[in-house]
Amino acid sequence: MQILHMNKGEGETSYANNSVVQKKIISVANLMVEAAIVNILREIQPESMGFADLGCSSGPNSLTVVSQMIHAVDATCHQMGRSLPELKVLLNDLPGNDFNHVFELLPELYKKLKDDYGIHEGCYVWGVPGSFYGRLFPVRSLHFVHSSSSLHWLSQVPASLGASSGTHLNKEKIYISKSSSASVIEAYQQQFHEDFSLFLRSRAKEMNIKGRMVLSFMGRMSPDPFAEEACYQWELLARALMSLASDGLVEKEMIDSFNAPYYAPSAKEVEREVDKEGSFVVCGVKAFEIEWDVSDSRTLKESTGHRVAKTIRAVVEPMLESHFHLGTDMMDDLFRRYATIIDDCRSERRFKYTNLVISFIKKG
Amino acid sequence: MQILHMNKGEGETSYANNSVVQKKIISVANLMVEAAIVNILREIQPESMGFADLGCSSGPNSLTVVSQMIHAVDATCHQMGRSLPELKVLLNDLPGNDFNHVFELLPELYKKLKDDYGIHEGCYVWGVPGSFYGRLFPVRSLHFVHSSSSLHWLSQVPASLGASSGTHLNKEKIYISKSSSASVIEAYQQQFHEDFSLFLRSRAKEMNIKGRMVLSFMGRMSPDPFAEEACYQWELLARALMSLASDGLVEKEMIDSFNAPYYAPSAKEVEREVDKEGSFVVCGVKAFEIEWDVSDSRTLKESTGHRVAKTIRAVVEPMLESHFHLGTDMMDDLFRRYATIIDDCRSERRFKYTNLVISFIKKG
Repeated sequence: MQILHMNKGEGETSYANNSVVQKKIISVANLMVEAAIVNILREIQPESMGFADLGCSSGPNSLTVVSQMIHAVDATCHQMGRSLPELKVLLNDLPGNDFNHVFELLPELYKKLKDDYGIHEGCYVWGVPGSFYGRLFPVRSLHFVHSSSSLHWLSQVPASLGASSGTHLNKEKIYISKSSSASVIEAYQQQFHEDFSLFLRSRAKEMNIKGRMVLSFMGRMSPDPFAEEACYQWELLARALMSLASDGLVEKEMIDSFNAPYYAPSAKEVEREVDKEGSFVVCGVKAFEIEWDVSDSRTLKESTGHRVAKTIRAVVEPMLESHFHLGTDMMDDLFRRYATIIDDCRSERRFKYTNLVISFIKKG
Repeated sequence: MQILHMNKGEGETSYANNSVVQKKIISVANLMVEAAIVNILREIQPESMGFADLGCSSGPNSLTVVSQMIHAVDATCHQMGRSLPELKVLLNDLPGNDFNHVFELLPELYKKLKDDYGIHEGCYVWGVPGSFYGRLFPVRSLHFVHSSSSLHWLSQVPASLGASSGTHLNKEKIYISKSSSASVIEAYQQQFHEDFSLFLRSRAKEMNIKGRMVLSFMGRMSPDPFAEEACYQWELLARALMSLASDGLVEKEMIDSFNAPYYAPSAKEVEREVDKEGSFVVCGVKAFEIEWDVSDSRTLKESTGHRVAKTIRAVVEPMLESHFHLGTDMMDDLFRRYATIIDDCRSERRFKYTNLVISFIKKG
């Protein structure tokens, strides 16, 4: 919980400057977000609307979703000929997230609300530090829950992988891979099951009846947890780490004992948890491919490998640093090696992630 | 609004490490806070209790008040034989405040709540970035409002002091002083009137009937705004700045154009605004003296002047830096001079601030 956060600040390796993949995902999910908001306003007609963004992170994306949501509320209310409800926007992330950076962007957002929508009062944007694997909000206080690029993070590395016991099940790898044993896959699946069911139970208490939830996260279309669409970025990062080990720069045992607190589920696995928990109905599932490299032309000086390495580094550096204690120079070395490995493999084919966007209704 | 924040982080000049005066003030106000909470629980008996700390800053003090408040709620509920209400604790400060530092202390607070009070769920501590001179919370969402060492900060430097027009009314000074003209004093009083009445109007909308508010801030017992108890720390800081100017290190015009966005009112002035606004009854006023130097024995290697200079620097450095652009070395120089001036004057007498703690009830 203390080590899972994006790279802070606005520097070259910051998440704020390296979150184009996540931005793309937000734009794909936007249609489902809009539909959810229209339905909430039509069906519940709330006077005061509670909106939570879980795993808001820090950077331009944090407030993009808020802007989209307010735009949808404004447009729908305009169509319905009603006045805007009071808006409570609750931005959640772990306590180690760079909330300062998000909050510094708020005066600009409030100015935009005034200029574009005439909203002077009645929109409150707050920060909610804590894990979404557990309760974050009062009972029935939310109408809409959103989360983008966050729920593939588990609450912890599966304990049975043996990081603490010293018998490491997943040697030379840092996530599920093609060569993973059944027990590695089971460990990850079990942790996903525990985490996601706790997530659903917590939101079930916090959301109003007929409230809506749109979640997007890394997943897969294949039923196999070791499918490349779900694992290959970790496979190549493990190779980069192992090349440091070959050169005597990192102990191999450190790699054996590291595993990513991550799981990319299939839509089926998600729906199975939803059925078991029982408080939600899935009303829409969209699975789509997204290229590892979605960068625009401005940054085309660098190779694809370097661009991809930067987007991954912004997300995983804090957890790598906390385990390997590499320091900046060695971390630079690691991600240069990672970039080269990606470029070398990439001549064969274009790499893609699979992203899932799933829309839910809270049952009565 | 962008430049009024305490020194961030945990370094030597940080507010987190230099807030002993404010800590002392919180402990003096604690009796009034406890009384307010007992009354809320007896009179309103809320199922869910909204608590706002306005100007929470960053450092150990930020969560001290929260702990005291929860302790009082727990003790009172125990006496009344009732279960604890759900607690919504809303920590407010300007968007530039170091909220990250406050949020990183939260896991420890939640652990304490679990260990000391058996609170596992039902206490939510959130961050509310924005100016308390304006609306921050939904209508009737609060039962208790607390603010310590914040309301002496104005929303802005009084415009009529001429910082923008180039005709400076308050030359060689940075706040009201014994030699101030009537127009300087009026400018400050007018800004206090505008700000404090807006503060009251905003809270009046946000608070429940019979809700309570305890505010503590720098003030004075004397009716004279130029009384030393209210001004002398600024008088001596102006002297330190002028000594930089004498040595050609700062332009005198820069000092002429700088004024602190600060006002230390008398209890009478506060009560006059409360009467005018009409939504609150003052139910308790305590004025007390607090020494400039309240440090404990651990830091006695330094002179009183140095200790006082550090407590003031932690609070005013960002606004000085934004106006004077001194850089760290010159800022060090300024506060060394300030320390020496305080030590020199101090042989004559011990300096004291006056602090006011005022308790309010929201009318029906």
